[in-house]
Amino acid sequence: MEDTEDASNAKFVNASDTGEIPSFNGDEKAKATDFANYFCSYAQLYHQKQMLADHNRMAAYHSAILGNSSVFKDKVVMDVGTGSGILAVWAAQAGARKVYAVEYTDMAKYAKRVMTANGVDNVVTVIQGAVEDIELPMEEDGLDPEGPVDIMISEWMGYFLLRESMMDSVIRARDKFLNKKTGLMFPSHCSMFVAPVRDEDDRKQNNNEYAGAMSDWHDFAETTRNMYGVDMDILEKDFDREQKEYYLLSSRWTELQPEVLLAEPKMIKQFDMATCTLEEARGITAGEPDAVFCFDINGTRNLGPVSAIAGWFTSDFRSRTDEHAAIAPKIENPSFLSTGPEQGYTHWGQQTFYLLSPLPLLKGEITRLEGSIEMTRTKENARLYNCKFKIQNSRRRLGQEDGQVLMKSPVQENVYQIP
Amino acid sequence: MEDTEDASNAKFVNASDTGEIPSFNGDEKAKATDFANYFCSYAQLYHQKQMLADHNRMAAYHSAILGNSSVFKDKVVMDVGTGSGILAVWAAQAGARKVYAVEYTDMAKYAKRVMTANGVDNVVTVIQGAVEDIELPMEEDGLDPEGPVDIMISEWMGYFLLRESMMDSVIRARDKFLNKKTGLMFPSHCSMFVAPVRDEDDRKQNNNEYAGAMSDWHDFAETTRNMYGVDMDILEKDFDREQKEYYLLSSRWTELQPEVLLAEPKMIKQFDMATCTLEEARGITAGEPDAVFCFDINGTRNLGPVSAIAGWFTSDFRSRTDEHAAIAPKIENPSFLSTGPEQGYTHWGQQTFYLLSPLPLLKGEITRLEGSIEMTRTKENARLYNCKFKIQNSRRRLGQEDGQVLMKSPVQENVYQIP
Repeated sequence: MEDTEDASNAKFVNASDTGEIPSFNGDEKAKATDFANYFCSYAQLYHQKQMLADHNRMAAYHSAILGNSSVFKDKVVMDVGTGSGILAVWAAQAGARKVYAVEYTDMAKYAKRVMTANGVDNVVTVIQGAVEDIELPMEEDGLDPEGPVDIMISEWMGYFLLRESMMDSVIRARDKFLNKKTGLMFPSHCSMFVAPVRDEDDRKQNNNEYAGAMSDWHDFAETTRNMYGVDMDILEKDFDREQKEYYLLSSRWTELQPEVLLAEPKMIKQFDMATCTLEEARGITAGEPDAVFCFDINGTRNLGPVSAIAGWFTSDFRSRTDEHAAIAPKIENPSFLSTGPEQGYTHWGQQTFYLLSPLPLLKGEITRLEGSIEMTRTKENARLYNCKFKIQNSRRRLGQEDGQVLMKSPVQENVYQIP
Repeated sequence: MEDTEDASNAKFVNASDTGEIPSFNGDEKAKATDFANYFCSYAQLYHQKQMLADHNRMAAYHSAILGNSSVFKDKVVMDVGTGSGILAVWAAQAGARKVYAVEYTDMAKYAKRVMTANGVDNVVTVIQGAVEDIELPMEEDGLDPEGPVDIMISEWMGYFLLRESMMDSVIRARDKFLNKKTGLMFPSHCSMFVAPVRDEDDRKQNNNEYAGAMSDWHDFAETTRNMYGVDMDILEKDFDREQKEYYLLSSRWTELQPEVLLAEPKMIKQFDMATCTLEEARGITAGEPDAVFCFDINGTRNLGPVSAIAGWFTSDFRSRTDEHAAIAPKIENPSFLSTGPEQGYTHWGQQTFYLLSPLPLLKGEITRLEGSIEMTRTKENARLYNCKFKIQNSRRRLGQEDGQVLMKSPVQENVYQIP
């Protein structure tokens, strides 16, 4: 093969050399790839409507904003990624003096019309562009041109919180525009959780589909050899890897019922949106103290087996808790959004990471599932993540939670992609 | 809205300013978008396998190449877009002296291994790159460095032949590398067909889904107004257009049975691959003499209604028919590939363009469906097409095919996207 480095498809990546999302410092190629892979779907009303019909999402933001209108009164607000603009309308309805609603895609054109239709176009200015690039027309609007933004609202959260890496843009916007001491972030805090769950039907289906794909391959290879005289066996291992990654080592969007939870969820990461850094937003690094779990599951009380680890997030809209908490305005009516199984449908659902084989629960025994999670951006696309789970399980008799171990598995390590 | 021209998403298009596909003369942004939108899927073995398991496709190429090994003996062959490389293996098996197998994606790495596994790596050289950019290492291979390629093979055809616009790359490769007088193209000729079909189940399903989406919208708008105090009605027309384009004005992949054909198919465009131009490959322009149809459907013999116009293509592998036909090698055993309903499954299927309302057929009458088709590349993506159909129908009594018209409809004009 005549293979020049230049010819490799590695050059078409949705990331800059530093692993940043391209909207900040990617080159033109990276920006174009990012637009094709990421932004363009947000330009569809169908997609916007899906988010607007997520009532847990809507209610959390609505009560966060309208339930705290005294905080919004006469303030300068910025909405990062306004989409069709509903958060900006609410901020205006809550009494904001000025709302800058920033949107990268052509959805901005629709947002502008929504402002007019809702009589808030005098308060809301829709700005089309990347929040990393734009300037606010503060002076034209009769505001202090150096004056910072008082409140930053954004619905930036992706699957398992971090997917899409939009948090980067929010952090950059915060550092560029928000009042450092008294500024408020909506949401103010975000947390990630994991818990072991029972979901054998879906786990088995993934495994069956993988097995079916490989059985298909064998038919195909045999037919290709017999009918067309070409040996494709050399690609079997690569096909197998591709299918395994797709069926077994990809998390799935699930809407789990509360009763499948087998233990109390464990918080593995928390972000204080007032202070969190771009470094933190990158993911979860090996050895972070929070990013471990140890679930003791009582086999007498729970119906097994353990099929998967489910992951989700919550978002809080409450007062600042950092060093400036004392001088920043208080949120009298905190609001809360959970995407966990106890809350019912959200369009985020849970990301469920299926075990390659189920872990049965035995009556009279405690099964301990302990391990850690690492979460890193993929090389090809800075908006996508891989999750590495290290898991070890062990069995003890009931009543001997820290006593004699009947059996302890080796540590299993698997890397899943969040598709 | 602060809307600078630069901020508009129009800059992220999969096309150059001239409507060319980016691999020829797009800028870096256009190439990156093109890779994200188009090429990357061909880097998956799953996708390759789908094509390799299309037996009508495989058999046509296999018999075209192996059935004419006397033509391939000692020749220099180029395979444009080799994928996992099967056509190149066959060319080598047919006795080619040298095969250059060109592939843009990282699938090239797999193709190279397929050559080794099949013992043809001494004959086949896999070259990773765009056929528009690469040079052939003729001299290194002991060939005349100025020597042209004798045979160009390629499986470049997309849905309804033209989708993907890969024909451009084949034409450019032909003009750059192929012997102008004696060179052979595989396939040699490609033709596009349309026919009226009965497929009410699918037509109705599209209409029902569209109606359901709009009914959903009304619920959504009402809920958003009542629960969250925001009026979204202003976007209804745009949502309606988006949904109509998606459900009603998009063609569908179908695997039609021969019995749903209501008239003899009409050829609307033919390409002689030895001579066709980039201009022709652009699509079908208004007023092209072939791009019209006039179907007389006997309502006594056919069960109606007319639900749609289906479109497909055929590819021939036969001798040259242009001015150099006399001196070019003859194809003694022509091969033929049809993607029409009479041939059974191909992965191309037919693209079916559903009428917005069905056209009933009456006993004792002839229903005439006449019109024209135009096919143009979309502004946003030079690899995608819009099809404009102008259709008029009229009814006559049986036996009065050119006599008294009982009823003649106005001309209906609809533009469909091929998704």
